[in-house]
Amino acid sequence: MTHAIDPVELAKTLIAAPSVTPATGAVFDALEAALTPLGFTVERFIDGIEPDGPVENLLAVRAGKGPKHFAFAGHLDVVPPGVGWTGDAFAPEVRGDLLYGRGAVDMKGSIAAFVAAAAATPVDAGTISLIITGDEEGPAIFGTRALMEHMDARGVKPDMIVVGEPTSVNRLGDMVKIGRRGSVNIWIDVGGTQGHVAYPHLADNPIPRLVRILAAIDAVTLDTGNDWFQPSNIEFTDVEVGNGATNVIPASARARLSIRFNDQHRGADLVAMIERIAHDVEPNAKILGKISGEAFLTPPGELSELVAEAIHAETDVCAEMSTTGGTSDARFLHALCPVVEFGLTNATMHKLDEAVAVEDLRTLTAIYRGILVRAFA
Amino acid sequence: MTHAIDPVELAKTLIAAPSVTPATGAVFDALEAALTPLGFTVERFIDGIEPDGPVENLLAVRAGKGPKHFAFAGHLDVVPPGVGWTGDAFAPEVRGDLLYGRGAVDMKGSIAAFVAAAAATPVDAGTISLIITGDEEGPAIFGTRALMEHMDARGVKPDMIVVGEPTSVNRLGDMVKIGRRGSVNIWIDVGGTQGHVAYPHLADNPIPRLVRILAAIDAVTLDTGNDWFQPSNIEFTDVEVGNGATNVIPASARARLSIRFNDQHRGADLVAMIERIAHDVEPNAKILGKISGEAFLTPPGELSELVAEAIHAETDVCAEMSTTGGTSDARFLHALCPVVEFGLTNATMHKLDEAVAVEDLRTLTAIYRGILVRAFA
Repeated sequence: MTHAIDPVELAKTLIAAPSVTPATGAVFDALEAALTPLGFTVERFIDGIEPDGPVENLLAVRAGKGPKHFAFAGHLDVVPPGVGWTGDAFAPEVRGDLLYGRGAVDMKGSIAAFVAAAAATPVDAGTISLIITGDEEGPAIFGTRALMEHMDARGVKPDMIVVGEPTSVNRLGDMVKIGRRGSVNIWIDVGGTQGHVAYPHLADNPIPRLVRILAAIDAVTLDTGNDWFQPSNIEFTDVEVGNGATNVIPASARARLSIRFNDQHRGADLVAMIERIAHDVEPNAKILGKISGEAFLTPPGELSELVAEAIHAETDVCAEMSTTGGTSDARFLHALCPVVEFGLTNATMHKLDEAVAVEDLRTLTAIYRGILVRAFA
Repeated sequence: MTHAIDPVELAKTLIAAPSVTPATGAVFDALEAALTPLGFTVERFIDGIEPDGPVENLLAVRAGKGPKHFAFAGHLDVVPPGVGWTGDAFAPEVRGDLLYGRGAVDMKGSIAAFVAAAAATPVDAGTISLIITGDEEGPAIFGTRALMEHMDARGVKPDMIVVGEPTSVNRLGDMVKIGRRGSVNIWIDVGGTQGHVAYPHLADNPIPRLVRILAAIDAVTLDTGNDWFQPSNIEFTDVEVGNGATNVIPASARARLSIRFNDQHRGADLVAMIERIAHDVEPNAKILGKISGEAFLTPPGELSELVAEAIHAETDVCAEMSTTGGTSDARFLHALCPVVEFGLTNATMHKLDEAVAVEDLRTLTAIYRGILVRAFA
């Protein structure tokens, strides 16, 4: 441990390199500069073109003597700062107990803790990887999936992964995500024939058919949940006709819905189900489904237990194992090996004046180090 | 009959005075100039302010010796010409058999025929009135209703009214309107609480409730029609949520519907019915109803028969007595006495290159004259 790393200073360095999604360049330079002296072999590559790219990805591996290979995963891109910060979103500043800056909790702070934890772990304890993308907040087309192809080509195969997303809710350590629901958006288009309301026999109103389709979907119960997942849920998110004239029967009507689904479903099956319901009412209805991610679960076991133990050892908190909330890159990484998500408190993520407690950064580093100790034991 | 009137020349004069709704001024000057030499007493007044006014109205009365008082009613305002006319919409021109110009059929042509028919009728045959507004195509707030108040104040009480709207469909004389359906537009607003689709328990989606309300309305059959009216009809004309974000549960959802109803209903009752249906699903739904007009019927009788006889005498056509189509100022005038609508063919009304057959203008004049002869017999 010739190179102790202060996670707070490294977090400040990373925050000071603006990296609104998709990210490349300086922020990756800063991370590489921290990793190389620790003995990591760093590989970086850029993929994709505008508007979804270019995206930079970084794979850092430090081979250990033990048989175990533990990986941390995360992202260096951030959401746009928005307008109204007290200070400069990209000028990290400690005020009181808090470090302010875009990415402080989501998730440059966690990445700094990854590095500091690795620095505090003997080189020969086991193999440690960092799987870091510059495109998690965007469409994630050239991000973690590209990294996984790269790892496959290099024969890099971790046994366990912790994704450092800010999963804690009220205090550091109170929640670990052991799975995530899947997500799919579906558009339903019903066509008709425009006309005057006084002459309905000359027109064909699409709205009643769309209403019948939506009423049929509204009556669907996908499931009642299971041990680890809440019930899958269908939400109508928009209906749009766009007819400003009170005396006109419109030519088309459109609705959009979002399904967050648990591991009892696959996205494509849900799109097909909605299509069947729609076509029962209107055979010519057009259905478009876009699957954001499939559901996954890492059933409670070795990985979640050692994470919970490390959390409890440092904080006395008993972490809740949860599958709630949105998606993360764990939806991809799950294909490699057991993966859970654990990181800072998420109260200020994506908001103005995003901030992390300085003390939490140090405690998170200790927890990540404790995870490594237990994983390599 | 010292002043014979050529209805084609008078129609050209009226068309040449642009009068996009709401109308005042020159077009009324032209009509007054034609009526005064025929012995009519002409009263004109202007009412309303922008944007629905100012509106000019004209009441012309020529007292006759007989007990009968017959009125023609109509409007000198026209809809905007739009872009793409072959010629100038306000430069009337006879090409082939047709007179082109905005208002040729709706309804400066009919008004020219009113005047020419009156000119061809002996002064002492009976009292003739012309009830002419400059606001039928617009909101009709300061138009015929203001004229009716004026008539009431003056003690002007016709026994029968023919409104000169273009009711003929395929050939002059094939359709007389003896009533009109009523019309009401209703807005339904359902509120909720915005939120993220991943956390539906923290939000309250208004769309399912709006869908249930619309499905319940869709299941309603208002009536099956009667001898003179087609069934009343509910058309959904718009649904609007306006939520562009796929991951957001919206805060409100709105729908609009139009009901065209026969004489078995009153507008206010229909609004109350929709409100009951909506409140069964969502007690806080907001309902806004705007009644454009109540249904009315002049049951077949003396007036419709003498109009049909005059049509048959001039054209050999047996007119269909109908209550189809949109609203007209007859919805107001019906309160005074029996009223029917009869005028030119409506194929080009409100369209580019609006045109009337020159021969139809002369035949319509003869029919209107025949109506006067029969009314005063």
